[in-house]
Amino acid sequence: MNSIKAFGANSPEEKLKPLSIIRREIGPADVEISIQFCGVCHSDLHTVRDEWGGTIYPSVPGHEIVGFVTQIGKDVKKFKVNDQVGVGCLVDSCRTCESCQDGLEQYCEKGATQTYNAHEKQLDQQTFGGYSERIVVDENFVLSIPENLDLAATAPLLCAGITTYSPLRHWNVGKGTKVGIVGIGGLGHMGVKIAKAMGAHVVVITTSPSKVEDAKRLGADEIILSTEKDQMKKNANSLDFILDCVSAQHDINSYLRLLKRDGSLTLVGAPEKPLPVSPFSLIPGRKSFAGSMIGGIQETQEMLDFCGKHEIVSDIELIEMQAINDAYDRLLKGDVKYRFVIDMSTLNG
Amino acid sequence: MNSIKAFGANSPEEKLKPLSIIRREIGPADVEISIQFCGVCHSDLHTVRDEWGGTIYPSVPGHEIVGFVTQIGKDVKKFKVNDQVGVGCLVDSCRTCESCQDGLEQYCEKGATQTYNAHEKQLDQQTFGGYSERIVVDENFVLSIPENLDLAATAPLLCAGITTYSPLRHWNVGKGTKVGIVGIGGLGHMGVKIAKAMGAHVVVITTSPSKVEDAKRLGADEIILSTEKDQMKKNANSLDFILDCVSAQHDINSYLRLLKRDGSLTLVGAPEKPLPVSPFSLIPGRKSFAGSMIGGIQETQEMLDFCGKHEIVSDIELIEMQAINDAYDRLLKGDVKYRFVIDMSTLNG
Repeated sequence: MNSIKAFGANSPEEKLKPLSIIRREIGPADVEISIQFCGVCHSDLHTVRDEWGGTIYPSVPGHEIVGFVTQIGKDVKKFKVNDQVGVGCLVDSCRTCESCQDGLEQYCEKGATQTYNAHEKQLDQQTFGGYSERIVVDENFVLSIPENLDLAATAPLLCAGITTYSPLRHWNVGKGTKVGIVGIGGLGHMGVKIAKAMGAHVVVITTSPSKVEDAKRLGADEIILSTEKDQMKKNANSLDFILDCVSAQHDINSYLRLLKRDGSLTLVGAPEKPLPVSPFSLIPGRKSFAGSMIGGIQETQEMLDFCGKHEIVSDIELIEMQAINDAYDRLLKGDVKYRFVIDMSTLNG
Repeated sequence: MNSIKAFGANSPEEKLKPLSIIRREIGPADVEISIQFCGVCHSDLHTVRDEWGGTIYPSVPGHEIVGFVTQIGKDVKKFKVNDQVGVGCLVDSCRTCESCQDGLEQYCEKGATQTYNAHEKQLDQQTFGGYSERIVVDENFVLSIPENLDLAATAPLLCAGITTYSPLRHWNVGKGTKVGIVGIGGLGHMGVKIAKAMGAHVVVITTSPSKVEDAKRLGADEIILSTEKDQMKKNANSLDFILDCVSAQHDINSYLRLLKRDGSLTLVGAPEKPLPVSPFSLIPGRKSFAGSMIGGIQETQEMLDFCGKHEIVSDIELIEMQAINDAYDRLLKGDVKYRFVIDMSTLNG
């Protein structure tokens, strides 16, 4: 067992600060990774502050992890020392249920092992995330990072990237489809880039006139201001698919109206409270209101390779580890374009 | 123009009573049908009482129409005099939009012409439904009724039958799928029979212990009492598809929990008010909440042929035309197993 440096919180009320945590020795199938960068996901904040309940303290978040392999177990075949690799939201799953067999470990019927705030069976302790020097992960849950991409800006692909890529792929977005992206933040800005690279006609739907120019820069073909009734009416029944990245309460029915017959609106942001859906938003066009959660390991690799090929990374603001508490405050105000990434070399700072 | 006998209402407050209405002369593509039986759908009651707004008076409802051809226009090819035929919820559509071209006239982008309470362009008056002696309909909106089925019990197939058949088919219910049917009334009892004939494992989900035996008789392989928490919990993540035939408010989230990963719950009943859907009912299993409305004309013929082959009809209670107002009162109490059908020979009664 190795004691390593990390950054986390000891209770919901406390700020994040330096901590020591234990990592397991590498087992035969394990890869040890020196963490170079870690993205900051809204889930990190929810967990550290126990906003979803069930946080185990000390809590070390971070599931957008990139770095280099420093050691490998004797049976590891996929990676060698110095490989550029990543770890996302999952570090293990049952591997035997139907979802795991289908490569959809995120829906593991026994519950996948989340990268943080889950149970690490090898050490009988909570899992600790990427706000730390190193991590030890089974090779089957480690991803290869394309060498041509900026490493820091690649970190958010491990959560924001796959969370948007997976539903776009699942609902067959591509050439000839017209896709709406609602909510241009960490998730949404990746959705725009990925949908565009898939060949779709991309329509950004936003409440903020201030985001129009940026949406175009990200790749949007059209922008609908959802606060303008005329624009919403004019675009009724026009979209094949809507990726809804909003995590605040919002009126789903007004977005469902934008879908063509047989269209789906898929939530990847997760508002806390139930969203009222009118039966008449669904029935007259055979429409669907759906949800999607991150993606499987094989699909995450596919997404990374796709992003490598299309040179897609996240728009990031690089921060030092000590700036994380301020970054959380700014995250709550939506004041980031579009993802904070921690330079982990500053952990000792 | 022909003046014929019908039964309808002159205002929302009035009971239904004998009326005279005008039917158009048959045009080159028209079929005139002598109506033998007409099913009583909940929509009839909503419309006559103006509960959805927009009812045009006098209102003559009825869109589960069966009878015999009495005259055909000179260009009619599909039917001849004395053929046993039916008319459902639609009597026309634009025929040129994408939905019409796809054989999904119910989703006509310009709005299909409903069998009653729509605009009949030939006479510039409202359309009048099946509570009447005769109806004149374009042959493209007339269906063939299999000769081996009891004619009266076939009438409800034209609405309740196709409304359940279409989503079961669209969401690929068949051998190897486990389908839940919620709400055993006019729609739901047809759903059970049709899903069973499609080869699915059928699970009826009901609040009423009194419906258990009947559900088995209709073809259910299993019954879940939704009022029993243990049964609902035991059956979580077990169903591929749920057909939700409930038109009262109900807790969608508790039913979504019964779906497997990638499952869909599809509404065909239409509760008036929005239904609160928790994002966490959808996201962790990539589930969908959808809606579906009747079916296209070609699919309605396919459904009738399927019912002919499998000898499926509705469970009905045959009533005289003069009993319609009492029947509406009983319908409101759910006191019918499972569909009232009017013997139209009693119209003169």
